[in-house]
Amino acid sequence: MHVDIILFDGFDTLDAIGPFEVFGHARSMGAPLEISLVTVESQSSVHSSHGLEVVPDGFLTRVGDDDSLRIERSPALVIVPGGGWRVEDGGVRQQVSDGRLPSLMRDLHRAGSTIASVCTGAMVLAEAGLTDGRPAITHRSAIDDLRDSGAEIVDSRVVDDGDLVTAGGITAGIDLALHLLEREFDEELSTSVAAVMEYEAQGSAYQT
Amino acid sequence: MHVDIILFDGFDTLDAIGPFEVFGHARSMGAPLEISLVTVESQSSVHSSHGLEVVPDGFLTRVGDDDSLRIERSPALVIVPGGGWRVEDGGVRQQVSDGRLPSLMRDLHRAGSTIASVCTGAMVLAEAGLTDGRPAITHRSAIDDLRDSGAEIVDSRVVDDGDLVTAGGITAGIDLALHLLEREFDEELSTSVAAVMEYEAQGSAYQT
Repeated sequence: MHVDIILFDGFDTLDAIGPFEVFGHARSMGAPLEISLVTVESQSSVHSSHGLEVVPDGFLTRVGDDDSLRIERSPALVIVPGGGWRVEDGGVRQQVSDGRLPSLMRDLHRAGSTIASVCTGAMVLAEAGLTDGRPAITHRSAIDDLRDSGAEIVDSRVVDDGDLVTAGGITAGIDLALHLLEREFDEELSTSVAAVMEYEAQGSAYQT
Repeated sequence: MHVDIILFDGFDTLDAIGPFEVFGHARSMGAPLEISLVTVESQSSVHSSHGLEVVPDGFLTRVGDDDSLRIERSPALVIVPGGGWRVEDGGVRQQVSDGRLPSLMRDLHRAGSTIASVCTGAMVLAEAGLTDGRPAITHRSAIDDLRDSGAEIVDSRVVDDGDLVTAGGITAGIDLALHLLEREFDEELSTSVAAVMEYEAQGSAYQT
């Protein structure tokens, strides 16, 4: 199972690293997972909102001869972190106005990937139209914006609507990944990873 | 206040990134903090145990003309992550047998830095002799080893013994950083950061 975690300049560090850590431990325990930290296009390094500089593992698209973006990878699960929804430019705000990441999420969703978001990463999915009329959650600070975009807000730390899974703010990304481990593999794996991480799951996932 | 978070190949990603995120949000809220991710010596990039490649912000020591390590920075607080205590080489195990990081922690402690650890990072402090006869905690898997080294194990998520502060496994690093915010600044800052991170503190700190 290929899991791609999206990176872009201004991403919230823990939004991406929480799920990365959970899936990493699951892989160490033998789960057949490949986890990559990827950018939309080729980029030598990415800076998080708090200044972590990460060298990504790869990228999702290649620019075609006609300047169109062609999907290079088609993962089973894509996770979009948040960060920077309340800033003028940079972070999620920049990704939404740029449009390439939302458009790519729409394409991957259509191609069969499960699309997940942590925190204000949900606003990228809203821009892609993926949350329209569907149950979803985001960081507290963006709940009104997500509702205004047409999503049905569910007050839960993790909201699982099948091929669309959203989580609340920052640390809720850990719960999202633990929930997906339980869903895609089994409860024992999820419980074992939480134990190794000395983490007590906060709240339960809402599942349609 | 300068906070240095130590990186070495094989560090557990979240052990370092949890506190990095907490202090980053505190800084965004106006706390006078400088947070750096640093290696012991100059190193262009560092790989975590799960494969995250990070470009560090700087390094702690410079090699003198006589091959001795000279401290280049003297932070108020140093945080040592864990990772890889149970592997043959790499991670904390490698840092302990190499000896430079433990020796540096001893020097910085003597020079007045508060030394903190997350997870099996405590084994680096044990090797430095810093936990001898003092209350401390580590990841569950290393508690017997830490006790055998001469520390007094306290079954708490965070153990604050003044200039030595240790935390349990992985996610306990978030609680360690929240506790240090409360200790060095005030409870309101710590509570605000936890709220932004949508994190409920797990257990309370043991303070001597």
